[in-house]
Amino acid sequence: MTKKSEFYTLKGYDLKDKKLMTYAMEDYLEMIYRIFCQQKSIHVKEIAKELNVSIPSASKMMRKLKSKKLITFEKYGEIRLLEKGKKTGTFLLWRHQVLTEFFRALNGKHFTLKQVERIEHFIDFETLKNLERLTKTLLKKNKNNLPK
Amino acid sequence: MTKKSEFYTLKGYDLKDKKLMTYAMEDYLEMIYRIFCQQKSIHVKEIAKELNVSIPSASKMMRKLKSKKLITFEKYGEIRLLEKGKKTGTFLLWRHQVLTEFFRALNGKHFTLKQVERIEHFIDFETLKNLERLTKTLLKKNKNNLPK
Repeated sequence: MTKKSEFYTLKGYDLKDKKLMTYAMEDYLEMIYRIFCQQKSIHVKEIAKELNVSIPSASKMMRKLKSKKLITFEKYGEIRLLEKGKKTGTFLLWRHQVLTEFFRALNGKHFTLKQVERIEHFIDFETLKNLERLTKTLLKKNKNNLPK
Repeated sequence: MTKKSEFYTLKGYDLKDKKLMTYAMEDYLEMIYRIFCQQKSIHVKEIAKELNVSIPSASKMMRKLKSKKLITFEKYGEIRLLEKGKKTGTFLLWRHQVLTEFFRALNGKHFTLKQVERIEHFIDFETLKNLERLTKTLLKKNKNNLPK
């Protein structure tokens, strides 16, 4: 163990990675997109409720997402997704679904949403594609193992 | 979406979970145990070097691990693992290895240590056991697919 170590603490990795979006921004945008799939206009109150945060916290984040040109956010609390926000939201929801389906196939009854929510920020695109493929195989296998 | 939502932001999950050990404590103890497997006595300088942190940061953490009765830590910087520290270290290294082997089997050449380091804190025991089993199947399958 003489050469420069490749290990870091979790904080160390955070400092190394300069992400365009923070984890919190990802969580909020995923939720906005989730609601957007059901209704075209969203109010900041709904976001706050869905993410168990206060309205001032949610409003503060909406201003950040607006500054990144992901959403429009009006003073009376209405939110609309811009094109860039829709694209990013589609990816975030897909990422969430790939992980949810993988953990469901892997863990069955023991599935917990919390685990997906905790790790989704750190799983890269290549891994997601491989997990998506693996989940299909697992589900096929489970189906074949079902009692006739 | 009228009942209380089960979604939280990453920070929200952190606030909900009252863990006995912080993620940083886990990273440090895993590294101590990793070195302990090769040599019985460890110096705080080695830990700092291996985790790419400063010696004062590492020393501060050693005092925390000492207060949890996981290690002994002397003023001149020598660290020894206590029984509880060995047990926890064994688990932490096993967890790391299960995830490393799974991602290696899944991603092949694309394997990145960073991904394991980022998510290991959030994967529960049941999932680890299932992943360990799944990795064995994947490796067996890959072996069978090798050209003769």
